[in-house]
Amino acid sequence: MPIARILAIGDELILGRTVDSNSAHIAQRLSDVGLTVDYARTVGDGETAIVRALRSACRGADLVLCSGGLGPTEDDRTRHALARAMRSPLRERPAAWRHIAGWYAQYRPGAPVPEVNRRQALFPEAAAMLANDRGTAPGLLGKVGSCWVACVPGVPHEMEAMVGRILQRLPRLVPGLRAPTVGELWFAGLGESAAQERIPGLLSERNPLVGITVSEVGHITLRAVGTPAQVKRRIAQLRSALSPWLLPKAGLGPSLVHELAAAKATIACAESCTAGHTAAQLLAVPGASEVLRESLIAYHAEVKIARLGVPDALIRQHGVVSEAVVRAMAEGMRRAAGATIGVATTGLAGPDGGTAELPVGTVWVAAATATQTTARKVRIRGSRTRVQQRAAAEALFEAWTAWKRNAR
Amino acid sequence: MPIARILAIGDELILGRTVDSNSAHIAQRLSDVGLTVDYARTVGDGETAIVRALRSACRGADLVLCSGGLGPTEDDRTRHALARAMRSPLRERPAAWRHIAGWYAQYRPGAPVPEVNRRQALFPEAAAMLANDRGTAPGLLGKVGSCWVACVPGVPHEMEAMVGRILQRLPRLVPGLRAPTVGELWFAGLGESAAQERIPGLLSERNPLVGITVSEVGHITLRAVGTPAQVKRRIAQLRSALSPWLLPKAGLGPSLVHELAAAKATIACAESCTAGHTAAQLLAVPGASEVLRESLIAYHAEVKIARLGVPDALIRQHGVVSEAVVRAMAEGMRRAAGATIGVATTGLAGPDGGTAELPVGTVWVAAATATQTTARKVRIRGSRTRVQQRAAAEALFEAWTAWKRNAR
Repeated sequence: MPIARILAIGDELILGRTVDSNSAHIAQRLSDVGLTVDYARTVGDGETAIVRALRSACRGADLVLCSGGLGPTEDDRTRHALARAMRSPLRERPAAWRHIAGWYAQYRPGAPVPEVNRRQALFPEAAAMLANDRGTAPGLLGKVGSCWVACVPGVPHEMEAMVGRILQRLPRLVPGLRAPTVGELWFAGLGESAAQERIPGLLSERNPLVGITVSEVGHITLRAVGTPAQVKRRIAQLRSALSPWLLPKAGLGPSLVHELAAAKATIACAESCTAGHTAAQLLAVPGASEVLRESLIAYHAEVKIARLGVPDALIRQHGVVSEAVVRAMAEGMRRAAGATIGVATTGLAGPDGGTAELPVGTVWVAAATATQTTARKVRIRGSRTRVQQRAAAEALFEAWTAWKRNAR
Repeated sequence: MPIARILAIGDELILGRTVDSNSAHIAQRLSDVGLTVDYARTVGDGETAIVRALRSACRGADLVLCSGGLGPTEDDRTRHALARAMRSPLRERPAAWRHIAGWYAQYRPGAPVPEVNRRQALFPEAAAMLANDRGTAPGLLGKVGSCWVACVPGVPHEMEAMVGRILQRLPRLVPGLRAPTVGELWFAGLGESAAQERIPGLLSERNPLVGITVSEVGHITLRAVGTPAQVKRRIAQLRSALSPWLLPKAGLGPSLVHELAAAKATIACAESCTAGHTAAQLLAVPGASEVLRESLIAYHAEVKIARLGVPDALIRQHGVVSEAVVRAMAEGMRRAAGATIGVATTGLAGPDGGTAELPVGTVWVAAATATQTTARKVRIRGSRTRVQQRAAAEALFEAWTAWKRNAR
């Protein structure tokens, strides 16, 4: 299979001030069309370092895709580095300047084009221009030795659109591309080690390549990559070994939205320590607005009492972080919203406020249906955001279990 | 300055199924203590590829930090690769096996330790063990040539704790470490190009190194890295050039929480298309629970009417995505929650449901105080999640502007 490599460029990346999500997007799209991405690399904005990284990535590869370093500011040096790697002089490209001026005319009517944006019209003479309909910086396409190099801006939604257009050109640039088959299945409620014990030997397979990934939002993914026949057989085998834990979609949020929508059922969330993450995990799914009746973040005791009908006495007797209160929240939310399932969370996301009895990371989750309410206590380690996110996933797992029990 | 390199290991990373957030965390922590991270690289789980990446990263570096590939499953090969790169045979380490058995005894009492976990006790003979108090996989510390190599699990909260412990050892491993000074400032409401025109020449500085980063949640960061004197002078200069747009904290959410808490003021959110992202951006900040009175996701017209008191007639006359409705939502939320500021959003996050008049990505945001309500229409391009996230940032910017106006 042809080889691709990915370079993400920017001082903020190697200083760790920004998480590079671009490379994952690019890797997925390139491997989906049949390129083997053998590595992705992050480099700073130093021009010489970029030139070196480019030359090294181009050796033995068919395509190097770079994101970042195409902004209007002086610290962005990707164009200059590409010109040096291509040994082609950098000049202002009139078509690029027309694009930039046109973009300003459309999105900032009346404002003059800042002079600094002229930098974005600089191109190595031998490079082609890649159109950008979402921002000022055109992309660049050139050759270093026998390897194609495409450079796109680091702004994620500009990058995504441009990568799409590069993929359309790819069959002409890299002959002999053939997309592999990728099969995935998802499960929840079973750990990584326990899963492997049910599928002995399969994870060391390379034909098809089988891999396992634990997500931070409560599910595990198994993936097989190979020929259609290999993938089909292997996925069927994995599916039958893990059937009690399988999810129909890639995650708890998507699975709940899918099944509730199909049954015209609804859900409502009363969130305390999860701070909206439960609703956000559901609402990341297209069409979720049909399924989520309502979601309330009820941090304060008065809000729990006034909006969810949690009895004041219950809070005084058991404390806010308690089984009694989380059950009352789930039931109250379900009733108030007229939903099929009510789900609730209450706990301590930290970093402060923990005690010996209720350490930071203690969370109660509950799910209520017409016939039954269940609650569970979990203890989550890690940062405030991790507690919020994982506790939301636990709440969705509780709702998923309630839904499956209800459906039987 | 001593050189460090980062390797993130996993097929899911080079297939683009998982975003590598570990490398950013590691890069930030290493550069904060005075190592220059000249690159970060992602490789798959193939053992030979890891050996090659390790050897190449170790040449000319003082420390290589690897994350991932230490799970109990057969596809994880980091230990094996390290043994080959170190030319040291792999054997079961009794202390590591005791740690794994102890972890199971504590967190899965009664359950037998899965046999597959024995793989996590394998160590190159010449490597030291790094304790892991958050999971089963101990880390490894060894030497390839004159370069230290530390391997930690890929699970983020295990990785974070172990990197902390490696940093404590670092002064003994890498002599002559000296932490640089990093200064940052944040602003909102002014674009990247416009900002650069106010600080001509500064972004090409290397002493101190000055960089600019645009975040997806509505603010821009300027960063200077150098000696204390250089950084202090440069930050003061940047600060005075951008004073009308400065934020007191690293983002709109943190700035709002900080200022509202100091003034004992509160905020409440009524979210439609932003699906909880507005509250989540606020509640990611420790202490935000004191400031956020209440947050309601009001997707459905009935919820807007019943909970926020938006007049039915207003919705019928103007439609849900309209200035009149967003204003009524913000005012209704502020009143219902008894908050200082009410903020609201209504719009189309997509991917479907757009029309010629109201294309996907159209969002109204509003902020209401006791004396004034303002609303603004924005148009956001990109995926559903991006529209939700950016629209939430626009709502917070509206709230920030309202707060600053109110404070004058």
